[in-house]
Amino acid sequence: MIAPITVALGDRSYDIHVGPGLLAVAGTLMLPLLPSRRVFVVTDETLEGLHLEALKESLDAAGIENHGVVLPAGEQTKSFAHLESLLDAMLEARCERSTTVVAFGGGVIGDLTGFAASVLLRGVPFVQIPTTLLSQVDSSVGGKTAVNTRQGKNLVGSFYQPRLVLADVDVLATLPPRELKAGYAEVVKYGLIDEPAFFDWLEINAAALLAGNRSASVRAVETCCRAKARIVGGDERESGQRGLLNLGHTFAHALEAEGGYGELLLHGEAVSIGLRLAFDLSVELGLCPPADRDRLLRHLSALTMPVDLPPLPDRSWDADRLVAHFGKDKKVKDGRVTFVLAHGIGQAFLSPDVPAEAVKSVLAAAILRVRGTSL
Amino acid sequence: MIAPITVALGDRSYDIHVGPGLLAVAGTLMLPLLPSRRVFVVTDETLEGLHLEALKESLDAAGIENHGVVLPAGEQTKSFAHLESLLDAMLEARCERSTTVVAFGGGVIGDLTGFAASVLLRGVPFVQIPTTLLSQVDSSVGGKTAVNTRQGKNLVGSFYQPRLVLADVDVLATLPPRELKAGYAEVVKYGLIDEPAFFDWLEINAAALLAGNRSASVRAVETCCRAKARIVGGDERESGQRGLLNLGHTFAHALEAEGGYGELLLHGEAVSIGLRLAFDLSVELGLCPPADRDRLLRHLSALTMPVDLPPLPDRSWDADRLVAHFGKDKKVKDGRVTFVLAHGIGQAFLSPDVPAEAVKSVLAAAILRVRGTSL
Repeated sequence: MIAPITVALGDRSYDIHVGPGLLAVAGTLMLPLLPSRRVFVVTDETLEGLHLEALKESLDAAGIENHGVVLPAGEQTKSFAHLESLLDAMLEARCERSTTVVAFGGGVIGDLTGFAASVLLRGVPFVQIPTTLLSQVDSSVGGKTAVNTRQGKNLVGSFYQPRLVLADVDVLATLPPRELKAGYAEVVKYGLIDEPAFFDWLEINAAALLAGNRSASVRAVETCCRAKARIVGGDERESGQRGLLNLGHTFAHALEAEGGYGELLLHGEAVSIGLRLAFDLSVELGLCPPADRDRLLRHLSALTMPVDLPPLPDRSWDADRLVAHFGKDKKVKDGRVTFVLAHGIGQAFLSPDVPAEAVKSVLAAAILRVRGTSL
Repeated sequence: MIAPITVALGDRSYDIHVGPGLLAVAGTLMLPLLPSRRVFVVTDETLEGLHLEALKESLDAAGIENHGVVLPAGEQTKSFAHLESLLDAMLEARCERSTTVVAFGGGVIGDLTGFAASVLLRGVPFVQIPTTLLSQVDSSVGGKTAVNTRQGKNLVGSFYQPRLVLADVDVLATLPPRELKAGYAEVVKYGLIDEPAFFDWLEINAAALLAGNRSASVRAVETCCRAKARIVGGDERESGQRGLLNLGHTFAHALEAEGGYGELLLHGEAVSIGLRLAFDLSVELGLCPPADRDRLLRHLSALTMPVDLPPLPDRSWDADRLVAHFGKDKKVKDGRVTFVLAHGIGQAFLSPDVPAEAVKSVLAAAILRVRGTSL
């Protein structure tokens, strides 16, 4: 097991453990941090069938009283309606301010549960046990919680840090290959932002990672968590550099909003396409050498990661509709969208004044490629 | 106009202005604090008919673009359903992170709007313009926000500080006398906690205050806000001394839960009865001289403040049912309730280990008095 990674946020600092076999020792690792030996576990139906028993055994063995709820799996669960019923379940279970809430699942469970923990009795302690590659490297670290609304993703939520994050890479073995690949988009993102050496490493090792190699998984998850801990520690509330973590995400959110948050396009798949579009936009603006964009494109394609928009079932993609979604982004200020662009691989930066024509031109080209495919 | 009162909370510090005529200068006072000249005003139907126009004129005069919504008046508005529709309205109005949300109303509007502001886009700036005596002296200061759930009051919410509080005592002139009196319970509370000289002053001046005397109103609201700013500045998240502000409230919440949060018993009326019961309990435990309890009782009675439980329309009060509500209090730890007791007027303290028999005995006596009345 590697040494824990610390997210340094003063009296809200916490550790991230990355490694194999963590589920079996989850109770022992949590125990010193609990105000009382009582936890409320939130998970989904998929995890219930696979790993919930192992977690409960570990909690029981540490003498931690545990109750909880099992929610439906899927993005639809990240809703206001589920937030309300989750809080209702917590109150019915007589959760107190000393009861620790445990999120055991992927990004949906982590975001929803963290939000509920932040507002239950005005805030109760909270532990993240992320079970997908995406949540292990991204959403479980940094304290962003949220639900989706009809206006878009993550528009309602809070900044609320967990007390502990346990990323057990063994759990990734039961993840469907499509989800593992989707999560990989967030992994490669860290190489693209400011760690070109990590991108070099991924060019060699990503295939092993996606094939389930344990040491490659530990190394990748650790590198990503370390990068995220560093960025979040410097800018918890995203007033500056934390915005870099949104590389590819402005495009991704618009694609997901148009695609309907369903099976057509998983979040990580939208990010994979979004990373490519962010580099396309950087090239279009003359800010990034085409060779760096092409290198990214080759890497993603070699792993069969999505780099092009999937055909919509009932209509064509529309550049204006996609642009309209940008305006609903949380980062909008006075109607202006801040994009994350790149001067090259490992050289991302924030740009608040991207010309609308360049964005439209990149989207038009992307849509043309879909049409080309569907002919 | 008196000098502003500062709530000292580091980079979340803010000023409270107390005085007459503040609505007319609200725009001017807010302007230096706004990230952009755009606000979203939340108010209720009662205020809409009385003072909303004056606020809008003041905002217009300062060149502040203002939109907003008008919600139904009453405790029922402090619900999860209204929270969801309020957030929906804010997103539809394209609120951004630089848009300031203004709560213009009593405690219900302040608590609901503050909660919405704390979770909209993970937090937008927020200004309180409290319009009732209760909200001016208590709920608008200190950053507690909440909604009610079926398990009880204020069980879901956040700690979220406003950027500014404007308490215009002129607005109190249009407050129904019953609400003014209900708010007075929170005023007298500050004297009972740790300001015996303020209690002395109230014995002489409270009648003038309740008759609408402007200088008495300014003095009372100022004293209360100063006391609350001091207590909150020392313990923002209620890990200790802030708990004193709950004097009378454990009883009050149980009475309201049984009484149905309606016309039978306003929150402040429940607090008035709760203050008496807290002193009864302190006397019962031999911790407070009966003379201090009797002095409080005389003061409240002289102002025709409620000191006895009102008869329930459909059944008798039940001590066990009231006790059961205590267990749902946010302050419960390992099933134990922390009461606020008093060694005398101006000498309140927290007590985590009150014998259940003493509480029941006080409640039984209170219920006997109702039966006495209804015979």
